[in-house]
Amino acid sequence: MSAPAVLVGIDLGTTVCKALVFDQDLHLLAGASRPLALSTLSGTEIEQDAEEWWQSAALVVREALRKSGCEVHQVKGLGVSSQGIAFVPVDGSGSPLRPAFSWLDTRAVGERRAVVDALGERRIFSITGKRCSEAYVLPKLLWFREHEPAAWARTRRILMPLDFLLARLTGGNVTDHTMASGTMLYDITRRQWSPRILAAFDIDPSILPGIRQGSETAGKLRPASAEALGLPAGIPVAIGGQDQKVAALGAGIDLERCTISLGTAMAITQKCDRPVIDPAMRIPCFTDLLPGRWVVEGSSVCCSILDWAKQAFFPSASWDEVNRLVDEAAGLPNAPTMLPFFSGAAAPFFDPAARGTLTGLDLSTTPAQIIRSVYEGIAYLIRANIEVMEAISRPVRGLRIFGGGSKSDAWCRIIADTVQRPVSALAISESASVGAAILAGTAGGVFSDPEDAFPLVAVRTSYEPRPENAVRCHEGYERFRSLAGQLLDVGELGKRTRKPAMHAGRRRST
Amino acid sequence: MSAPAVLVGIDLGTTVCKALVFDQDLHLLAGASRPLALSTLSGTEIEQDAEEWWQSAALVVREALRKSGCEVHQVKGLGVSSQGIAFVPVDGSGSPLRPAFSWLDTRAVGERRAVVDALGERRIFSITGKRCSEAYVLPKLLWFREHEPAAWARTRRILMPLDFLLARLTGGNVTDHTMASGTMLYDITRRQWSPRILAAFDIDPSILPGIRQGSETAGKLRPASAEALGLPAGIPVAIGGQDQKVAALGAGIDLERCTISLGTAMAITQKCDRPVIDPAMRIPCFTDLLPGRWVVEGSSVCCSILDWAKQAFFPSASWDEVNRLVDEAAGLPNAPTMLPFFSGAAAPFFDPAARGTLTGLDLSTTPAQIIRSVYEGIAYLIRANIEVMEAISRPVRGLRIFGGGSKSDAWCRIIADTVQRPVSALAISESASVGAAILAGTAGGVFSDPEDAFPLVAVRTSYEPRPENAVRCHEGYERFRSLAGQLLDVGELGKRTRKPAMHAGRRRST
Repeated sequence: MSAPAVLVGIDLGTTVCKALVFDQDLHLLAGASRPLALSTLSGTEIEQDAEEWWQSAALVVREALRKSGCEVHQVKGLGVSSQGIAFVPVDGSGSPLRPAFSWLDTRAVGERRAVVDALGERRIFSITGKRCSEAYVLPKLLWFREHEPAAWARTRRILMPLDFLLARLTGGNVTDHTMASGTMLYDITRRQWSPRILAAFDIDPSILPGIRQGSETAGKLRPASAEALGLPAGIPVAIGGQDQKVAALGAGIDLERCTISLGTAMAITQKCDRPVIDPAMRIPCFTDLLPGRWVVEGSSVCCSILDWAKQAFFPSASWDEVNRLVDEAAGLPNAPTMLPFFSGAAAPFFDPAARGTLTGLDLSTTPAQIIRSVYEGIAYLIRANIEVMEAISRPVRGLRIFGGGSKSDAWCRIIADTVQRPVSALAISESASVGAAILAGTAGGVFSDPEDAFPLVAVRTSYEPRPENAVRCHEGYERFRSLAGQLLDVGELGKRTRKPAMHAGRRRST
Repeated sequence: MSAPAVLVGIDLGTTVCKALVFDQDLHLLAGASRPLALSTLSGTEIEQDAEEWWQSAALVVREALRKSGCEVHQVKGLGVSSQGIAFVPVDGSGSPLRPAFSWLDTRAVGERRAVVDALGERRIFSITGKRCSEAYVLPKLLWFREHEPAAWARTRRILMPLDFLLARLTGGNVTDHTMASGTMLYDITRRQWSPRILAAFDIDPSILPGIRQGSETAGKLRPASAEALGLPAGIPVAIGGQDQKVAALGAGIDLERCTISLGTAMAITQKCDRPVIDPAMRIPCFTDLLPGRWVVEGSSVCCSILDWAKQAFFPSASWDEVNRLVDEAAGLPNAPTMLPFFSGAAAPFFDPAARGTLTGLDLSTTPAQIIRSVYEGIAYLIRANIEVMEAISRPVRGLRIFGGGSKSDAWCRIIADTVQRPVSALAISESASVGAAILAGTAGGVFSDPEDAFPLVAVRTSYEPRPENAVRCHEGYERFRSLAGQLLDVGELGKRTRKPAMHAGRRRST
């Protein structure tokens, strides 16, 4: 009997590059990670070294395999989950011509405005499924062409982090639909680069990679790179995709449930069987990893707010202690309300100028109540997104949660109570790596199809909504909506579609 | 040559009773203080033991005199500064029939509504100079009559803390105009108990003390009490008055300047030579200690917010360290904005349901910026009050600051920059005790008139507004006003009177 198959999932994030090694039943064998540097040139100019993407990926794969104790010939496939939107221009040999623009880079404010002026916000939304933001590729590409003409002249291709790794791993020039759908150059309905947008901004499509399904095989590990990874050449490499979509795959969701990623950013992702273009432009649509599937996805800064709040209030406590205090704070009167818009409000509000707001403070407010208000604020934001998803797509029966925040029982319970739906926290919180391993297994023939692996995705704990908390959570949510309505500039379209109150008979008379 | 005269100022506050001993040039010789207990029966029912008022006052006078090393025969007068609004019902012998109602007690919500229903908010304001609040005496007196009929039947007099001390010290049955003007039973224009209000609520005027000028002499220290204080009988006792007005006297202000008290509560007080009844009911009017003088006065919780914030963010740092960090935080970008309405918004906004709000938070916000935002929030509130004072009364040329918060250079500078007027911090921050000593000296013949003592009031530091900070402070103030406008329910009358922007040419284009 041959040694069991082993799958490697690479998760190239924004600040960390990870590799996890799994067996063919998706049991985690070992993992390794390295921090990735961000160069903050100014508050708006944020860059990364693309070579570091590759070198870090190679190092963590080597280290994770060494830790796993597996033989290299057991590795049946490699899969990649990648941060989206960032890109680096390269020359004909694939060498970077400048540092990569991070997705956090927001220098292209003027170019964003030019894009909106040229096409109109509504037309952009109908083509791409999203509002134009300076985070996306298109405005930054225009900035690059305008401000660095010499480098632009030498540019042969534009590679996003996934594309850059795939080029190194297999020699291909390819991206996937989930990455492409975050560029603002992509037609979400036709699932191709948008001829209209490319023409409007005079962009030669030859600088863009080909687009393939993330669940397909990109090619085989080429010899030069195999050496860097400490693996034999020829191992199948999956296409992979953008991390939130790969993580949603790793969570094994279907059309009935959403995934919630509680990482540095929060993302709530719902699968759809058609492109769902919100007429009120409240929530963006992306393509999914699988053919014939799309997602609508809300996002927000998330655990970075908690890290900020913990540093401010409980610098020397453990998260276990903090979570215990947060649990106890549930019973305290006069809970404060947090709008967690620490870097602007995204779906479903869209007010980039919004900032974090904490209200309801009195002299009895405790630091634990404030941490709890962050948990609750994110939960309210999840609920606000679900309301829109149900209005424009289909009902949401439950949630699967992963990411660092999913380890907090307190938070998972708050979310279950707030959305009044069952919430399952996954056994392996690094869902993007799980998804990458599923794609690796599909490329390597371990799974005939990614969905074959779904029964292997294990749940750590399921949280049922507690009916006795429904009214309190609903009142808290109404305070959150009311505060958002008072403070945010959401425009006419962003206004809430009034629905009958959930608990009209039990609401306070005021 | 006889030993120099010594004056004793008693400051009966809400949580502390103090006595300070001064020489006749108002140099501080010694002081003593004792905490006063508050019985919090519930979130709204807050009481105090009136006997403790008296016993604590006697003890601190004894102790301060002992510390001063003065001979008792040097004491030429006693003066009292008192918390306002609280009251205790007493029987014919002056013994309390129940605990005193604290001014913090807000149980009389229904009675407040009944008062407003009976007379109308506007008529109440025109008679008393203020909106009806459950903090004032009238609603609580009605509550007492309704809920405790047996004690009510035995009630012969209603004594506020000043009245209670004066009764013990001199045997008199007297209060002063500043105390009377906080009862909601007093006609601010005629300077007498309001026959209309007494009749409307069927209150027998004989239960109320006589009203005299605070600068007059109440009488002589009676033998029984002299023993408790360790003083000879016969020493003149001034009438005294409500602490914010006594403190304003102790700050030596005239009609051109305001006083700012930065204590547990903030108060901004402007003298007027007529009763100033704001047609928009934004700011209340009280009588002053001196004949022919009134004050308009805004107030807010204040240092208790700072104590709360320091406990949350810097529990083990000294205030000196915190103030240094607050100073340094001036240069940081993206300052957050604080609405310091931790127990409702008072003048000039009046929204009792408002609570503290902190906005403009991003991941770079520091705890020092948040403490600074409290300093700034109070400074903005001071400026908002000054705008109303100038609209309804007269220009404000400068400010005199006292109270614990006045010891912070950082805060005084912020206030000077925000109001763009000179700010003087007094050498003795316990201005209420200074004022009480001035009244003691007037009663004892050391001063022929309280204003004779004004040249003796010493300034610690003067802060000139820094023109280079004017624009930044103005922008911060506009953010504060805008946030207050979005969040507060101020009613039609509470809306801001639009004035031309201070720096219209330099404001941001957005």
